[in-house]
Amino acid sequence: MLETMERLVALDRERALLVHIGAILGWDQETYMPENAIEERAEQLAMIEGLAHEKAVRPEIGELLASAEARTDLDEAAKAYLKVARREFNKETKLPSRLVTEMAKQTSLSQAAWIQARKNDDFSAFAPHLSTMIDLNLEMASALDPDSPAYDVLLDLYEIGSDQCGTAAVFATMKADLLRILGKITASAQVDDSFLSRKVSPADQKAMNEYLLDALGFDRKRGRLDVTAHPFTTTLGRQDIRITTRYLEDYFPSSIFSTIHEAGHAFYEMGINPYPDYQGTRLAEAVSMGIHESQSRLLENIVGRSFSFWSCHYPTIKELAKGSLDGVDLEAFVKAINKVEPSLIRVEADEVTYGLHIIARFELESALISRTLAVKDLPEAWNAKMKELLGLEVPDNARGCLQDIHWSMGAFGYFPSYALGNLYAAQFWDSLKEALPEAEQGMEAGEIAPILGWLERNIHELGATYLPHELVWRVSGKPLDPSHFATYLEEKYRRIYGW
Amino acid sequence: MLETMERLVALDRERALLVHIGAILGWDQETYMPENAIEERAEQLAMIEGLAHEKAVRPEIGELLASAEARTDLDEAAKAYLKVARREFNKETKLPSRLVTEMAKQTSLSQAAWIQARKNDDFSAFAPHLSTMIDLNLEMASALDPDSPAYDVLLDLYEIGSDQCGTAAVFATMKADLLRILGKITASAQVDDSFLSRKVSPADQKAMNEYLLDALGFDRKRGRLDVTAHPFTTTLGRQDIRITTRYLEDYFPSSIFSTIHEAGHAFYEMGINPYPDYQGTRLAEAVSMGIHESQSRLLENIVGRSFSFWSCHYPTIKELAKGSLDGVDLEAFVKAINKVEPSLIRVEADEVTYGLHIIARFELESALISRTLAVKDLPEAWNAKMKELLGLEVPDNARGCLQDIHWSMGAFGYFPSYALGNLYAAQFWDSLKEALPEAEQGMEAGEIAPILGWLERNIHELGATYLPHELVWRVSGKPLDPSHFATYLEEKYRRIYGW
Repeated sequence: MLETMERLVALDRERALLVHIGAILGWDQETYMPENAIEERAEQLAMIEGLAHEKAVRPEIGELLASAEARTDLDEAAKAYLKVARREFNKETKLPSRLVTEMAKQTSLSQAAWIQARKNDDFSAFAPHLSTMIDLNLEMASALDPDSPAYDVLLDLYEIGSDQCGTAAVFATMKADLLRILGKITASAQVDDSFLSRKVSPADQKAMNEYLLDALGFDRKRGRLDVTAHPFTTTLGRQDIRITTRYLEDYFPSSIFSTIHEAGHAFYEMGINPYPDYQGTRLAEAVSMGIHESQSRLLENIVGRSFSFWSCHYPTIKELAKGSLDGVDLEAFVKAINKVEPSLIRVEADEVTYGLHIIARFELESALISRTLAVKDLPEAWNAKMKELLGLEVPDNARGCLQDIHWSMGAFGYFPSYALGNLYAAQFWDSLKEALPEAEQGMEAGEIAPILGWLERNIHELGATYLPHELVWRVSGKPLDPSHFATYLEEKYRRIYGW
Repeated sequence: MLETMERLVALDRERALLVHIGAILGWDQETYMPENAIEERAEQLAMIEGLAHEKAVRPEIGELLASAEARTDLDEAAKAYLKVARREFNKETKLPSRLVTEMAKQTSLSQAAWIQARKNDDFSAFAPHLSTMIDLNLEMASALDPDSPAYDVLLDLYEIGSDQCGTAAVFATMKADLLRILGKITASAQVDDSFLSRKVSPADQKAMNEYLLDALGFDRKRGRLDVTAHPFTTTLGRQDIRITTRYLEDYFPSSIFSTIHEAGHAFYEMGINPYPDYQGTRLAEAVSMGIHESQSRLLENIVGRSFSFWSCHYPTIKELAKGSLDGVDLEAFVKAINKVEPSLIRVEADEVTYGLHIIARFELESALISRTLAVKDLPEAWNAKMKELLGLEVPDNARGCLQDIHWSMGAFGYFPSYALGNLYAAQFWDSLKEALPEAEQGMEAGEIAPILGWLERNIHELGATYLPHELVWRVSGKPLDPSHFATYLEEKYRRIYGW
């Protein structure tokens, strides 16, 4: 390995160590931290983030990058690393630290205001903060790339290589597909899922989760499951990937599917390993939010809500439910966990209506960023979208435009990755089935390892080596094509709703 | 506040933030970290320790200290702070960073070798590491103060202001007291504690611990209880003090007394608050290990093993024991938890023989440091001490000189603070009883707050403002006097053993 590359990797690893330390602080804050510790924890996080940023923008890195890029004797690994390292270095050095500090400060204030506003159903209290977050995002976009439309620059932060036009085109197709399928479902007899609201204690739900994690082969020496208000996955180190869940006593599927979902994220993080020399660098990180989401959605929905998966695991889950699933057979259970019904809250949405929630947010946030929608008009625009896409009246802003945390955090351009994740997942799944025709049948015998092994080799391992659209090409031999997702939904719901 | 002082405090707080971040990494490592994460965790800890050291030795601090020390208009708080800050700055800057790095590295190797050696009862495998740790400690002592005997310098690191001569004199008196009391106990009929080995599930022990923490007024908004292999207390922030315990199914007192012990440490940390302007600095840290231990011992033994305390809490603990204390009355229970019997393992020793274990280690480690005892002769010397002080034959080194972790970590001069803690505790307790004559009777009604309030005002709050011997003077009006501990033990065990 060239000396230049060795030094770059060493500097990058120091930054990554600090990022992982920040992740420990964040994880502890959500899981075990006593409540009065919050102020000092914020200071600790700010210090670590500051140190990580300092490490990331050292002028030495710029010099080393330039010197390495000028060479003609680089191997494939070095080339892949330089691409990622250059991209991130440019990004971090382009942002004035005044703006970074201002965003951190305004995000804190804005999030606190959002929590109150949602609680009080008071959009006007949140509106000025939302305006500030939009202003700051526009400033950031202009600092990063003054020549491109702001929303393109923001989208690129979460789903690198994507832009507003391409995303809108993909979403237009997806919207038509989803509305068509939703129409067929609405015209069919609804499935019964009333038994899913029978009480199951958190201890029994925990036993279900531990059983499912074992069934999936989740390695406890490299990860763990804890309880938080909102489930998440976080990387505390290359050998330390943690997931969380929550327990609703009167709806246990919430817990088991969030666990499988987060396990999907965790398997991706655990599997990243592009080139041994570049462990612990930016090349050994996930490429995008959308690809990440594809791995969690694939495991949660395509695997975790399938008849094949449950034909193996339902007997045990039924037993662990301690009577709450008595009289419910496999068929009824799988139908219930796949019930489709338009609803107001994104995070509770089914596989079909979920994409419509995302389209609404994509259209609204791109309009906010292009200033064609004024902040004060957001509630009305939101409610119109919900009516148009889901046929629902929104009774209040708490269940409307105030429901999600993202905009209060200044995350514009993030939402599309949730829907892209579903599209990627279905496309990857078709490639997987082609390579492993026995995969679905294997699930009936509890065999998940071949599926996870294929995902690891074809997606996880590569880390940030390929951009999302390059990865999709590599895996499936063609660009992103929403028809895979539509076909998957068609087949699945035809069986469940029997049209 | 002077500008110089403000800047000093700001720099000190940055260091403290990093120390607290290091504490989170350490706490997580012992409680929840997946096992494969250990290597990267070591790197993370090394990085944070390195950054904290860098912050602590910045030349700017030296300049600010000198400029502040030259002033004649300092208030009491500034003077107190400067004393502590100067002391620590001198200490940190005197140690060559090569030595600090070497010690960190050798400590890792030595600890790993000790774990194996203890497991295999193989002293010879540990001996070379012990020699290295002694060499490094001598080098450190000489760097810190080339003009004083090495063991004095090392003692001062843990119990500031103490030296070998003074400690030996105090221990000589204590030794005579302990042997006299032990003699009386040995001549009396032994108490029965066989029922303490009845099975109590970890869940039931946890309920006992939570009950006792509530009874003591432990603030869950500022702390929490978790489970680790070895119980400890750690400070993750001014508002975040965590304690741990462990559960032995066939000896539940181990868990409840370790919990009360660690709560004693935690109350000290929670109570530190010398001057508002100096929060988060070295002045707002514990003054010494011995004073720390006095607070845990006072709560565990003087309060937590008293008839008064249990006359209030025994009924609930008996209930929580779910039958395992049936037929055991208050009198029998309190006698059992105070049973005295010479034994081989320090951490399992009773209040009387505990001090003898410490004296043995003090005598042996001071001989190792003065090179009057060779490493290879340690096992023999150890076994002779155990015979002399406790009348016991040591069957193997695992239960002999390999039982404690301290020397493998290079901590020489640490052990005395455990015994000093007992002496301080008894002396503080006598002052407390003088100020609050109703304290003991109050315990029978469950009133602990007046006791903890007195400790907070007279000891905890002060932080590092006074050296241990100054604090003892301030609280009791005289120097350290081991007769308080002897009298306490005499009175307690006269009642229990009925001589």
